Amino acid sequence: MTIPHDDLAQRIDLLAQIALKIGVGLQSGQELIVNAPLESVPLVRAIARHAYRAGAAAVLVNYADDMMKLIHFDDGMDASFDHAPVWRYESVARALSEGAALLNIFGADPNLLANVDPRRKARSERAHGMAAQKLFTIIGGVQASWSIIPFAHPAWAKAMFPDLGEAEAVSRLWREIFKATRLDAPDPVADWAAHVARLHARAAMLNDRRFDALHFTGPGTDLRVGLLPGHVWAGGTVTTTTGITCLPNIPTEEVFTMPHRDRVDGVVRATKPLSHGSLMSGIEVKFEAGRIVAADAQVGGEVFRNLIATDDGAARLGEVALVPHASPISQSGLLFLNTLFDENAASHIAIGRALAINAPGGDIAASPGANQSLIHVDWMIGSAEIDVDGLAADGTASPLMRQGEFVA
Amino acid sequence: MTIPHDDLAQRIDLLAQIALKIGVGLQSGQELIVNAPLESVPLVRAIARHAYRAGAAAVLVNYADDMMKLIHFDDGMDASFDHAPVWRYESVARALSEGAALLNIFGADPNLLANVDPRRKARSERAHGMAAQKLFTIIGGVQASWSIIPFAHPAWAKAMFPDLGEAEAVSRLWREIFKATRLDAPDPVADWAAHVARLHARAAMLNDRRFDALHFTGPGTDLRVGLLPGHVWAGGTVTTTTGITCLPNIPTEEVFTMPHRDRVDGVVRATKPLSHGSLMSGIEVKFEAGRIVAADAQVGGEVFRNLIATDDGAARLGEVALVPHASPISQSGLLFLNTLFDENAASHIAIGRALAINAPGGDIAASPGANQSLIHVDWMIGSAEIDVDGLAADGTASPLMRQGEFVA
Repeated sequence: MTIPHDDLAQRIDLLAQIALKIGVGLQSGQELIVNAPLESVPLVRAIARHAYRAGAAAVLVNYADDMMKLIHFDDGMDASFDHAPVWRYESVARALSEGAALLNIFGADPNLLANVDPRRKARSERAHGMAAQKLFTIIGGVQASWSIIPFAHPAWAKAMFPDLGEAEAVSRLWREIFKATRLDAPDPVADWAAHVARLHARAAMLNDRRFDALHFTGPGTDLRVGLLPGHVWAGGTVTTTTGITCLPNIPTEEVFTMPHRDRVDGVVRATKPLSHGSLMSGIEVKFEAGRIVAADAQVGGEVFRNLIATDDGAARLGEVALVPHASPISQSGLLFLNTLFDENAASHIAIGRALAINAPGGDIAASPGANQSLIHVDWMIGSAEIDVDGLAADGTASPLMRQGEFVA
Repeated sequence: MTIPHDDLAQRIDLLAQIALKIGVGLQSGQELIVNAPLESVPLVRAIARHAYRAGAAAVLVNYADDMMKLIHFDDGMDASFDHAPVWRYESVARALSEGAALLNIFGADPNLLANVDPRRKARSERAHGMAAQKLFTIIGGVQASWSIIPFAHPAWAKAMFPDLGEAEAVSRLWREIFKATRLDAPDPVADWAAHVARLHARAAMLNDRRFDALHFTGPGTDLRVGLLPGHVWAGGTVTTTTGITCLPNIPTEEVFTMPHRDRVDGVVRATKPLSHGSLMSGIEVKFEAGRIVAADAQVGGEVFRNLIATDDGAARLGEVALVPHASPISQSGLLFLNTLFDENAASHIAIGRALAINAPGGDIAASPGANQSLIHVDWMIGSAEIDVDGLAADGTASPLMRQGEFVA
């Protein structure tokens, strides 16, 4: 089945409205910065129309062409892989600190960089990570309103549904996007409000219980993730330091907090492939005192090892998140080949940078156990076969999730 | 006749190479910023490929979607027309001052803003002009290498060739572009070198003669343009303060210098329509002591009057340029509806901001007769019916152009 064209245009228009109302919480007089793939012009124009109607001072779009990355890796001089345009990242950081909102539209070919030298890719990622430090600080500390929403990029759709023709694959992906982003609900705004309330309640429960650690067990996994003293669980909407309520990820199903950078031990097996420039699957990792000391994968082991070698913090955890196996994205049974979706289908951990929102008082600088890194990459370790216990400081275990579902 | 597809791709590739080699003079290790219309993706990718092969540190593209302007004018709140994103212009200014090169790709619908309220358009132009002050200073002072090149935008092609189908109009426009940008020459690089040498010689001759004023005469025109004491004639390539040789406009046929802001008197009739957001034709203007005191037009008079009301300097001259009527663009007999081409088909004047390159020692701040404004808009006053004399301080006239051609 193909969605009729006018219906699709209406849904894209609705996605634009939700992105502004629920996502970035756009205020009258704000500038809106949109980072978008070239292919997403119709969505961007719909966003601009609704943003201006809502009183935006300006809508500024940074279109990204995936091909430019490939051209760089194909033809760039070696030194260029250690270079990134600091001025460009800092200009967005400046705009956000002056009050702009940031909306990222995700949609890319998950296989784009499959044939790129993993060391060059890692060097480039490191250079861009360093260039983006000020921007990351603002985003991580929720000092500005921001959100990420999806767009059914043709290459993404074809990678997910290789047996369908491109147009059909795109239609199919849009249907999954509309389902996951709650646009199928009779009143999407009310549906989002109820969902966010559930996530807030779950985060509040976990904040009350003050676990010392989480213990993940299941096939290939026996992992203890020590939590930062004073750690804060978050999920759903957040309120920026400037007083704006925004929802940083659409869709979102997770509650998440900060591991202690030195207190992660045991083994863990990824439950879903990880798409990060290229596809890695069957990742198996061993942690000792917070650090990955061994890592392998069925596919992409070298890419993963290059990734965790980006810097010292890249081999340590910056986030741990709980997602019920019953989440709609998980129940779709689809691998989206994209973190925005796949991390919301399963409990996960992120190697790299911790988020200020999970630090006591939002002050990551005053949290010595918080991990620092140029990267932040989520990968999925939850499934219907995974149990999670909360551990008290004295080691007492409380069941938290059984067979992938919350029991507390 | 339609250019075969592979031939077109080859020519676009050649245009990319000329833009880098002759246009911005790209150096190894430089960043390259490309401002480009959404439609010009194939040209941008070709530029990126050649730029990386030439050692670019990074190629950063700012794609612009014409529709976003229309959406803003359609749906923006009134206050938004006095707003422009300073941080965005200043980020490019920063990049240029840190060594980046700037390549602007021109291609737009000349009728895009035809139905927009001229006052809103003028307010928005003023806001963007103010936001771009630092950038203009760098560009005008040639403190960084920059260039503008054309792209055969479909709406531009259709506006020029309304009787052709879109594909045929685009092919036709590309052929005119290739001709005007000397890509038809057996050796375009050598051809550009010879052409630049001719422009340099003409500018040197005019610099030697040190005229006090120029006197334009012809149908509807009797205009004396006083020149700045110490004025500098420029044309062809320029050398940046950082020592890079670049060609700011491709194509280019003009030599140009700086009028004295208070010493322009008489009447002048535009010899070609002026396309600036919308089309103005039959412009007739009267100057007294440098200032436009009366302005009318057959089409677009209100737009023109709003334009010159942007600020005080918008009704005074910032540039006077001489172009032989025999220039290839003029001989095409076409109206390109675009300054990059049309200003190279005829002698012209620009209302608004003067250029540092025409100031003694490049120091516009030390030139009290230099005009200041947020705008700089060229319009065509030359034709086969126009004579130009150079006037000495004592009023002695020397013939400079007769019936549109140089005689000296």
